[in-house]
Amino acid sequence: MTRNTPKVDLERIERDIVAISKFGFNEDNRGVYRQGFSEEDMAARQWLRDRFEQMGLKHHMDGAGNVIGRYGPDDLPAILIMSHIDSVPAGGIFDGVLGVVAGLEVIRAMQDAGIEPNLPIEVIATSEEEGRFGGMLGAQAMTGHLTREWLDTAKDERGNALKDAMQAVGLDPHGAMHAYRRPEDIRAALEVHVEQGPVLDTEKTTIGVVEGISGVFKWNCRLIGKADHAGTAPMDMRSDALMGMADFAHEIRRIIDEYGTDKSRITIGHVECKPGFPHTVPGEVDFTIVGRDLDEEVMQALAQSCERVLSAIARRHKLRFDYEQMSWLKPAYCDRDLIDLIAAKAKLLDYSCKLMPSGAGHDIQFFCNHAPSAMFFVPSVGGVSHAPDEWTHWSDCERGTQLLLECVMELACEEKVAA
Amino acid sequence: MTRNTPKVDLERIERDIVAISKFGFNEDNRGVYRQGFSEEDMAARQWLRDRFEQMGLKHHMDGAGNVIGRYGPDDLPAILIMSHIDSVPAGGIFDGVLGVVAGLEVIRAMQDAGIEPNLPIEVIATSEEEGRFGGMLGAQAMTGHLTREWLDTAKDERGNALKDAMQAVGLDPHGAMHAYRRPEDIRAALEVHVEQGPVLDTEKTTIGVVEGISGVFKWNCRLIGKADHAGTAPMDMRSDALMGMADFAHEIRRIIDEYGTDKSRITIGHVECKPGFPHTVPGEVDFTIVGRDLDEEVMQALAQSCERVLSAIARRHKLRFDYEQMSWLKPAYCDRDLIDLIAAKAKLLDYSCKLMPSGAGHDIQFFCNHAPSAMFFVPSVGGVSHAPDEWTHWSDCERGTQLLLECVMELACEEKVAA
Repeated sequence: MTRNTPKVDLERIERDIVAISKFGFNEDNRGVYRQGFSEEDMAARQWLRDRFEQMGLKHHMDGAGNVIGRYGPDDLPAILIMSHIDSVPAGGIFDGVLGVVAGLEVIRAMQDAGIEPNLPIEVIATSEEEGRFGGMLGAQAMTGHLTREWLDTAKDERGNALKDAMQAVGLDPHGAMHAYRRPEDIRAALEVHVEQGPVLDTEKTTIGVVEGISGVFKWNCRLIGKADHAGTAPMDMRSDALMGMADFAHEIRRIIDEYGTDKSRITIGHVECKPGFPHTVPGEVDFTIVGRDLDEEVMQALAQSCERVLSAIARRHKLRFDYEQMSWLKPAYCDRDLIDLIAAKAKLLDYSCKLMPSGAGHDIQFFCNHAPSAMFFVPSVGGVSHAPDEWTHWSDCERGTQLLLECVMELACEEKVAA
Repeated sequence: MTRNTPKVDLERIERDIVAISKFGFNEDNRGVYRQGFSEEDMAARQWLRDRFEQMGLKHHMDGAGNVIGRYGPDDLPAILIMSHIDSVPAGGIFDGVLGVVAGLEVIRAMQDAGIEPNLPIEVIATSEEEGRFGGMLGAQAMTGHLTREWLDTAKDERGNALKDAMQAVGLDPHGAMHAYRRPEDIRAALEVHVEQGPVLDTEKTTIGVVEGISGVFKWNCRLIGKADHAGTAPMDMRSDALMGMADFAHEIRRIIDEYGTDKSRITIGHVECKPGFPHTVPGEVDFTIVGRDLDEEVMQALAQSCERVLSAIARRHKLRFDYEQMSWLKPAYCDRDLIDLIAAKAKLLDYSCKLMPSGAGHDIQFFCNHAPSAMFFVPSVGGVSHAPDEWTHWSDCERGTQLLLECVMELACEEKVAA
């Protein structure tokens, strides 16, 4: 803790995280079910508004369902502390929630210390971050990444329309377009989140400062050979589609070594072998490739190499290779000054700290090209995420919140701290 | 054609193959559906008995459903010409049928030439060769490879019991035990069959003399790692079960090079990736290994190498490897004297000819350790099998039948030919 900065109160952080975890808690698997616009999600949002009310903050729900509490003066660019409180089915209790509760605690700590900021501070629980409808509705709405067409047509996996889900909770779907925030009204957008990966926990590092959110491409691939009897077809007369897929998978490490970086990821997550009988040489294999890097040129090099290698393997195994690019999302970069600020404050607090990419998507990625934005991670035990046994040590929740407070104080009221 | 041996009549061969193809012919996919003990199968068996009757042969259906026609003297060891007329769903018109029709034509050609054999010749359409109930009922019954327990419990994929299927066509299931034929009553068992593989067609060879039926093992394998987010888990912190499977598949060629022969086959036919989501590192992969060779020691070396390689890969990728051996069938060898006879007669007829293993199972394999047995193949166009577009040129059907006649004449009535 630096001079004049108050200390955050872990008891309050823990109490709030546990309080939110009650909404949609499932006794059977100990996970939380709080999908966007569900009854449980809306109840948690109301709980948050009650908190804002108790703290004496101005608060409202915008047209996209974002719940916003504001502390400090009007009419000046705000510091946005954001994350989300919706969850995946059977999610953990820290994912998203920590970032919102940290925001609450930052303001409470300042209030308790009698610190009034020069710039307004907003705590925002974004709407529908987990992608029930295939996007990040709240963050997209605030940053101008929404279209009316998408609002009219988006559906969840069960076929429920986004517009119906919004209307059911009293929101006008097209009202989401009014949630837009102008860049000049945002001094900084900040998010603290659990890592959802193993790096910090494995390396015993307290803080991961996010350089940016990796870009990602997804391909649906198909190798077509010839289904033969596994006994009568000699090895050298086969066109075995699975062997082609396997040879490609075997090359992934080399492709990343040659064309990628330590931030590159290439994953084959789905494989379907046809006809899929033990005694039949697979005549067709459908599989996915998901590639990521923080540098779009590297993404392109990885993608080109994947295509070249698969084409060569197809020739070698007498296969036909086709693929369809399902998506190509560019990387988003955090603000260099804010990265430096977070790293400097972490050093001041004596927290170990490293720069890293975010391989997962987050609300902040939509703010990156809109206003100065930054994000940092605290460790997830074992890297577990989107599962009931997700865990982050309370001491790491405390450190993350303290670091957030330091940064917000610097941005919002430096002269007051110095005073 | 050798001196004194009559010539087979292709028109009769073609007419009979086409006649049998009408039973269970499906207009939609042009395939035949004649599963063991189906109405279509039994109708084809009755057609065959009518033929035997027309030819003046003694004939009967044994307790297993084998249909047997006999030409020549009583009370002497017989030459059995066998194959099957049941089919897989959507099968081709030559698979099995050629071997039975060739037997009919051998006897007709001898009858037309007024040749009476010294030893009896039987033409046998075996019962349920295609494994609807997981075995080869007719051939197993004749060679003592049946148990009453299996007869009582065997079921097809739809859960229909073998005993019910037999009773429905008027057979007493336990009566199959009476179909046993003593080795001393068998001079030779012979089968001619379409290859069901690409070797003869690719190499432009007319006859494949079968050295033996490859042994086969089947493993159900499982690699267990950890399902991680495909974005947040760095490549070197993953336990990616699919990458383990792929590395193994990539080693198959080397395993065969080092421990196998040109007759070895290792096939991964079924793969299931869990959870199977594009954005999740596969935490588990279940897959099958089916291995074959004509030498059981080679099979053992291949199996041991697969286990060693998979164990090493599991260590390297931080996975757990388990497998269950579902079956281990030993190779079965054809009789050396009969192999030499077939090869010599093929040479006499100026048919190109090669020794080869049978990778697929056949009725003859149950006879191999029971009585002198042999088998030969004629080419399958493109190696297609168990599919409506299976094809064998009529000229190859003719050559196969002529070669069978030469061999049968040599065994059954050499002195008559010489007379």
